[in-house]
Amino acid sequence: MGSFHVGGRAVTVEGLPVTQQPPLAPGSLPARFDPNGRYLVEQMYVQYFVPEPLRGRVPLLLWHGGGMTGVNWETTPDGREGWLNLFLRWGWAVFNCDAVERGRSGWPALPVPLWEADPLSIPVEHAAERFRLDRPGSQFPREAMEQFGRQLVPRWVTTDEPALAAYLALLERTGPCVIVAHSQGGSFAFQAAQRRPDLVRALVALEPAATGDPKDAGRLRDVPVLLVYGDFIEDDPRWPEMRRRALAQADAVRHAGGQVDVVDLPAHGLRGNSHMLMMERNNREVAALVRRWLQARGLEQAPAPAGG
Amino acid sequence: MGSFHVGGRAVTVEGLPVTQQPPLAPGSLPARFDPNGRYLVEQMYVQYFVPEPLRGRVPLLLWHGGGMTGVNWETTPDGREGWLNLFLRWGWAVFNCDAVERGRSGWPALPVPLWEADPLSIPVEHAAERFRLDRPGSQFPREAMEQFGRQLVPRWVTTDEPALAAYLALLERTGPCVIVAHSQGGSFAFQAAQRRPDLVRALVALEPAATGDPKDAGRLRDVPVLLVYGDFIEDDPRWPEMRRRALAQADAVRHAGGQVDVVDLPAHGLRGNSHMLMMERNNREVAALVRRWLQARGLEQAPAPAGG
Repeated sequence: MGSFHVGGRAVTVEGLPVTQQPPLAPGSLPARFDPNGRYLVEQMYVQYFVPEPLRGRVPLLLWHGGGMTGVNWETTPDGREGWLNLFLRWGWAVFNCDAVERGRSGWPALPVPLWEADPLSIPVEHAAERFRLDRPGSQFPREAMEQFGRQLVPRWVTTDEPALAAYLALLERTGPCVIVAHSQGGSFAFQAAQRRPDLVRALVALEPAATGDPKDAGRLRDVPVLLVYGDFIEDDPRWPEMRRRALAQADAVRHAGGQVDVVDLPAHGLRGNSHMLMMERNNREVAALVRRWLQARGLEQAPAPAGG
Repeated sequence: MGSFHVGGRAVTVEGLPVTQQPPLAPGSLPARFDPNGRYLVEQMYVQYFVPEPLRGRVPLLLWHGGGMTGVNWETTPDGREGWLNLFLRWGWAVFNCDAVERGRSGWPALPVPLWEADPLSIPVEHAAERFRLDRPGSQFPREAMEQFGRQLVPRWVTTDEPALAAYLALLERTGPCVIVAHSQGGSFAFQAAQRRPDLVRALVALEPAATGDPKDAGRLRDVPVLLVYGDFIEDDPRWPEMRRRALAQADAVRHAGGQVDVVDLPAHGLRGNSHMLMMERNNREVAALVRRWLQARGLEQAPAPAGG
C-alpha cells in the first residue's frame, strides 16, 4: 500500500510583498511569509492497496462523485466495510483517489484565485434530497446522515478540465485498468475512456452524471460498460432525463459495435437504493453484482484449486 | 482498516435564496441549489489500520504538521515506504489523520466564512527554506521536491481551537494511545496531553512548533515524552529559540517528576535531517530510533517465540 499525487502543473507568483506572520502555534515564533514562488496545482491524490493473492487481472480504480472524496468508498457512514475493503478482499488491487482540488489533492489559496467562480458547499438536507437519501424505504443508513455529512467537501464548478487531465495521467500511470466511477466521477470516466480506450478494460458507471461525448460513442466500441441505477429514479426531477441520455449513449455505443449493460437495481430485486448506493445497507450485494459482471468479462482470475 | 470523521459541530444557514446551478458535468442537467440548512464543520478525518500480529500495546496516532495532511506519513515523495507502513510492519495499529479543515477533513465554503482570516498556501521554495530542505548535505530527496510540493494544502491560522477539540475527540475514541506528532501537530499533541494525560501513554514530538502551556508542565508528569530534532538547527532564524523553549518546558516537566528525553539526531550519528525527517532518505533509521524508545517504555510486546 502507498500513495502518490499525479498530474497537475506549476504556477508562479511574482512581485508580492514579503510579510511577517504572527506565530502559527501558541508559544511558537513569528515567521517570515513570502508568497512569491512556484505552487504545484491541479494534482490528484491517489492511495493504492495491492492484496495477496491478487486475482483482479488489472487494477481497479475508484472515482468518486462531486462534492465528495475517496472516503466514499471506505468505511460506510454507519461503520461497515465499504467497496474499497470488499474489492481488496476479493483480490483486486484498488486505487482510490480524491479528484483535483478535493480532499488530499489540495487546492491553492493564492492571492489571485486560480479558477473562476467560488467553491460550493451543500448542506446535509440538500445532499439528502439531491442524492435521494430521504425517500421512504431507502437503504441509506439514515441514523448516520451526519457522519455522511462530514464527508462532504467544497467543489469548484470550473475545474473539469484539470480534473480530467489528472484522471488521464492516472490511467497512464496504472496502465490498463477497470474504472468504477460514481456520479460526476462517471462523467470523467466516460470522457477518459473515450480519450484512452486502450487503457480501460471495463467501465462500471454508478448513476453517472453524464456519459461522454455522443459524437465519440464509437470510441467505446472495445470498452465493456456497465451502467447501474438505484431506486426512486422516476419521481426525481433530474434522474429520468439523465438516465434517458445515458441510455441513448448506450444505444450509440452498441450501434458502433460496443457492449453496454444496464442494471436497474430494483429489477434485480435490490430495492431502496439511492444515489449513494456504494455505502447503503445492501452495499455488499451491489458490489457483488458488479464483481460478477467483471468476472463474466474474464477480468478476475479463478482462485487456485484447494490443495493445489 | 477503515476510516471515520470525528468531532466537529453543525452550523445552520438560513434565509438565503435558492438558485439554479448550471449543469455540473458536461451533458448533465441544471440543478436547484439551496444553500440553506445544516453543514457539518470542524470534523477530522481519520484512517486506521490494524496489523496482525499486533505488537503495539496501544494504538499509535500520527499527527502531521501545518499546511500538510496525513499524506506526510505515507509513501515518501521519492516513493519509499513512510512511517505509516513501517509502524504497521512493526505490529502497531496506526491511526493517521488530516487536521481540521485540511485534506479529507473538509472545510465549509459557506456564504459567510466560518473562520476569521483567509487560508494561506506557501510556495515550494518557501517550504524548502522554512523546513530546511535546501541545506547542503540534506537528507531530503531533493529530486522529489515537486512531489513533496503536491502534498501542501492551505491552512487557516484561526482554527487551532476546533483542531484541538477534534484531536481530543480522537483520543476519547481510541482510548489510551501513543501520539507521534510533527511540528504544528506537536503543539496540538502537547496541549492534548496536558488536557488528557490519562489517555496518552507516550508522546513523541518531532520538532514540535510548541510544547504546550508552561504553567501546566506538571500535567505531563506521567506522560513519557521524546523530543526529536534534526540537523541545521543552529543556522536557522527560528529553530534555536523554538528548541530552547521546548527544552525549558522539558526541564519544567522533569522538575514536576516527569520524564522527557531529547534526541538531536546529529548527536546520534544521523546527520542532514531537515524538519521533514519522517520522509527523508534515512527515514527508516529515524523511525527505528523512535521505535526503540517506545520499546524501552514497555509499549511494544516482544514477538512470540519461534515455533511457540
